[in-house]
Amino acid sequence: MKGKVYLVGAGPGDPELLTLKALRLLHTADAVLYDDLVSPEILCLISRRAELHNVGKRCGTRKVRQEEINFLMITLAEAGLQVVRLKSGDPLIFGRAGEEMEALRRADISFEVVSGVTSALGAAAMAQIPLTHRHSSSALVLVTAQQAEGKDAEDWSKLVGSGATLVIYMPGKDYSALAERLMAAGLAGATPCAIVSSATTTYERAQRTTIAELPQAQPLPTPTLLVIGEVVRYAAESVIGPHPEAVSSLLAEFQAESSPLSDEERTA
Amino acid sequence: MKGKVYLVGAGPGDPELLTLKALRLLHTADAVLYDDLVSPEILCLISRRAELHNVGKRCGTRKVRQEEINFLMITLAEAGLQVVRLKSGDPLIFGRAGEEMEALRRADISFEVVSGVTSALGAAAMAQIPLTHRHSSSALVLVTAQQAEGKDAEDWSKLVGSGATLVIYMPGKDYSALAERLMAAGLAGATPCAIVSSATTTYERAQRTTIAELPQAQPLPTPTLLVIGEVVRYAAESVIGPHPEAVSSLLAEFQAESSPLSDEERTA
Repeated sequence: MKGKVYLVGAGPGDPELLTLKALRLLHTADAVLYDDLVSPEILCLISRRAELHNVGKRCGTRKVRQEEINFLMITLAEAGLQVVRLKSGDPLIFGRAGEEMEALRRADISFEVVSGVTSALGAAAMAQIPLTHRHSSSALVLVTAQQAEGKDAEDWSKLVGSGATLVIYMPGKDYSALAERLMAAGLAGATPCAIVSSATTTYERAQRTTIAELPQAQPLPTPTLLVIGEVVRYAAESVIGPHPEAVSSLLAEFQAESSPLSDEERTA
Repeated sequence: MKGKVYLVGAGPGDPELLTLKALRLLHTADAVLYDDLVSPEILCLISRRAELHNVGKRCGTRKVRQEEINFLMITLAEAGLQVVRLKSGDPLIFGRAGEEMEALRRADISFEVVSGVTSALGAAAMAQIPLTHRHSSSALVLVTAQQAEGKDAEDWSKLVGSGATLVIYMPGKDYSALAERLMAAGLAGATPCAIVSSATTTYERAQRTTIAELPQAQPLPTPTLLVIGEVVRYAAESVIGPHPEAVSSLLAEFQAESSPLSDEERTA
């Protein structure tokens, strides 16, 4: 008898932000394929009898291709195993679940999608930023600064200027290029924004700035998200507090702490 | 000593899509203020010693004003209670959490936001629609068709036409007006869309159509979400299957089932 594949969201980082269903499936899975961004605390919750496969982008020095992940999922399920494909955040947002679902359908493997808390929500919760607000933003736009290979940078001019809150996943560390791209798309330099790093983990940090001043912001360790829009004004001063000049000391303190990831992994 | 307020997301409906943290807080809360859309199965998980307050829009025939909700939260926390403000989905998306956080800050009550799975994710998981896809959509836009009182209908022309996936929360039951508004904003009539009703609950239903054919679609019971964009083509035929002609019988079957909500509540 064939097994089944569960495409499961692990949430933004805090193990307590796993769903009850995700925890149940991690307890009963025969095999788990996980990404690098899934936190070690969450991996500890997986059943000891399950086989674990790190299929992150950087498995050692090797990059696991999407086709290999699909092949592995299908092979394990065809062997009768209950397979969890664990992704950080929610599987259906910037997670290539579309391609994995197509591969599973073609192989006639039954599957189920188990939603998770997407990272933008965790970042906003930590920074206490309402993503929509009756008086300032009636829409939320989620984009990624990462492109599919061989594709040109997405044109954001059709998405900004609507007054919607914009959240950029994986904004990268070149804040100058990012600010330039956002202003070229039509965003005013004075638009408030917040860089949120490692939200909902013990390493979480955030700083508030504006698009024009983004190039002067102290880079925060990845993974980061950038929240842009008038709603950022509602963020708690105490949470988002660090002004650019105060961030260097925070960063030094952060870097001195022991980290579950190597520097290479953290900055990749 | 003052208590604390937790703004907690209850997720899209399925109690198993609660986060571990939400469940812990429901078990330990002294008071819970909840909205109508929070499912009865989730309310059953609240500690028996907690006082319960339905602050939904339709508490009997009375509409509870935002100011009353803020006053109640603050009064309970000032009395030293641990208060959970439970909202369906995620608190920071279309949940007025911005106004509640401001009121709590003004009253000097400490609070924390606990993210939940927002309804768009639950609907997409049920219908197996990837909300972004390397080859067809690199952005996700969340809007609501409901307006703040006294405000004109939002102009969506700046949000459509980017090729982004669009999810409309609370699209209402007037599919003709909705289709007209979407086409006036610039969306092609042939754009695929899916109406998803009561996602992740035992009442979940979905149907696939196009913007132009939306007025002919059989209305599904609220709460619904409308998912729009090329990614809808990836939805499983078996999940989204019902063609317009097949939906009437499904609907009849659905209406014959017992429901935890009255017709009035369900369609309001």
